[in-house]
Amino acid sequence: MCSWPVPREPLRRVAVTGGTHGNEMSGIYLVRHWLRAPGEPQRPSFSATPVLANPAATAACRCYVGRDLNRTFTSAFLTATAHPGDPYEVTRAQELNRLVGPKDSGRAFAFILDLHNTTANMAACLFVDNAHDAFALHLCRHLQLQSPELPCRVFLSQVPGKESFHLDSIAKNGMTLELGPQPQGVLRADLFTRMRALVAAALDFIELFNQGTALPAFEMEAYRSLSFVDFPRTEAGDLAGTVHPQLQDRDFEPLRPGAPIFQMFSGEDVLYEGESTVHPVFINEAAYYEKGIAFFQTEKLTFSVPALPALAPTTTRGP
Amino acid sequence: MCSWPVPREPLRRVAVTGGTHGNEMSGIYLVRHWLRAPGEPQRPSFSATPVLANPAATAACRCYVGRDLNRTFTSAFLTATAHPGDPYEVTRAQELNRLVGPKDSGRAFAFILDLHNTTANMAACLFVDNAHDAFALHLCRHLQLQSPELPCRVFLSQVPGKESFHLDSIAKNGMTLELGPQPQGVLRADLFTRMRALVAAALDFIELFNQGTALPAFEMEAYRSLSFVDFPRTEAGDLAGTVHPQLQDRDFEPLRPGAPIFQMFSGEDVLYEGESTVHPVFINEAAYYEKGIAFFQTEKLTFSVPALPALAPTTTRGP
Repeated sequence: MCSWPVPREPLRRVAVTGGTHGNEMSGIYLVRHWLRAPGEPQRPSFSATPVLANPAATAACRCYVGRDLNRTFTSAFLTATAHPGDPYEVTRAQELNRLVGPKDSGRAFAFILDLHNTTANMAACLFVDNAHDAFALHLCRHLQLQSPELPCRVFLSQVPGKESFHLDSIAKNGMTLELGPQPQGVLRADLFTRMRALVAAALDFIELFNQGTALPAFEMEAYRSLSFVDFPRTEAGDLAGTVHPQLQDRDFEPLRPGAPIFQMFSGEDVLYEGESTVHPVFINEAAYYEKGIAFFQTEKLTFSVPALPALAPTTTRGP
Repeated sequence: MCSWPVPREPLRRVAVTGGTHGNEMSGIYLVRHWLRAPGEPQRPSFSATPVLANPAATAACRCYVGRDLNRTFTSAFLTATAHPGDPYEVTRAQELNRLVGPKDSGRAFAFILDLHNTTANMAACLFVDNAHDAFALHLCRHLQLQSPELPCRVFLSQVPGKESFHLDSIAKNGMTLELGPQPQGVLRADLFTRMRALVAAALDFIELFNQGTALPAFEMEAYRSLSFVDFPRTEAGDLAGTVHPQLQDRDFEPLRPGAPIFQMFSGEDVLYEGESTVHPVFINEAAYYEKGIAFFQTEKLTFSVPALPALAPTTTRGP
């Protein structure tokens, strides 16, 4: 497996973004706290910039006000000429692109860690582009080893042939952290503490790398999306049932052919008719009802991640 | 203890309302299902009318679009002259008052059961005006006895000297059912099934009463609000911490002086400084952040509910 280019110089410009969706509270309050207490995201070789990504949606405590910001970081949106009727999030995506991008340019930030919550029972899940993204995968490995007793899974999110539309794609390297389950508009202390520890460990990893640490190759287990499944619906398009109690809260567990996936309001069960075992994720995520997604079907795969070489000594000193 | 007037004739006009808050999904989908399958809420002596209380908020999957509908059923709002700039919910409250009221009139519906969800870990909780409301309390008792292994608590919600502003107050008798925990915008099958069973049992109770069944006196345990507690805040009014992990999810459990109630982002704990044990409810409810409420402090009380006499035989026959 060929390796993706790894950074050749220390990562100095790092952003931690929260509130990309304005009702996912852990990242919102971490970022707001750091804006008041900027010492926490500092490390000897760099200082991470906290960014509240979608202030208007955060003020309204809604996912977004015009369109989903985290689907708006394509070249088409980022380079479009501004119009008075543009959704707020198109304007905001362009602002963020000026602040921490521009996407695909040498001036872009070195790393963005974008913080999200889900109502699904996914615990911590790290979204990395693909299996060639060695730097991000070493970072994932570091986070997994910090608290091996807590689940911290890796999801390969890039769809082959499609441009990434996520916020973290405007930096040279990046990653999205999902943490759940947490209701929209609620800030749970347990998840806040967990997210805070994960971000601290991510910044520690970047510091380690900046200081010239080499990291050995390893085997990684990850999930990759195959397709998604919509809710059962009436002829008018309304829900006719919901996620089955035997599937609810079982994110990442194997779903075998013949197992129930939906419970109809009329009482019957709908069974999984696929031919092979899949691993559902984002089961019953609130934000996905409008997108027609009850859960994603993923496959589990294992692959090798090559060693991460140390930076050449001349480039590893702090600023 | 004096008793509240109990119905002297069979309850023929009964409404079950869902979607008073447009992102509380169990009641929304129960009502929508019954609008398609109207046989389920029928009983021999009456047929309950399913009502989607706030269609605009439900379509937007938000608590409300203009103002909280469930704070809008006061005489002042219900009798106000319509103006073009009125919040949607004022207009809708007046429509509902024409449909199932008018409030405080002989023409009002006999009973409204209003269905809600909470993000708090409250299980089933029945909101009844006060300890004199014998009919509603007998109904609560009936629901408790149907599934004694499942929590189904009673909350006395009327504030002395204040007019009730809830939807169920426009009927001659009524009750609000809260069921949690469920994130806003999510429909969990387990809670849907539980709510459906509770509503069925409530309709069965009304049928029993209509058929002339007398019910004996009993002792009831209930909760009554003492005050509410806001989150710790910064000088600018933003959250400075959130509900402590040792309080989160412990709705109705005793909170003793000196126990932690909040965890500050700066790391310290905030302790409960009251002088006596209270029973917190609606702990970390999403809809209450904007109202400045982290939880309600309640007291637990026990009181006697008098026997419910059978209806006189001449009035108990079906239509």
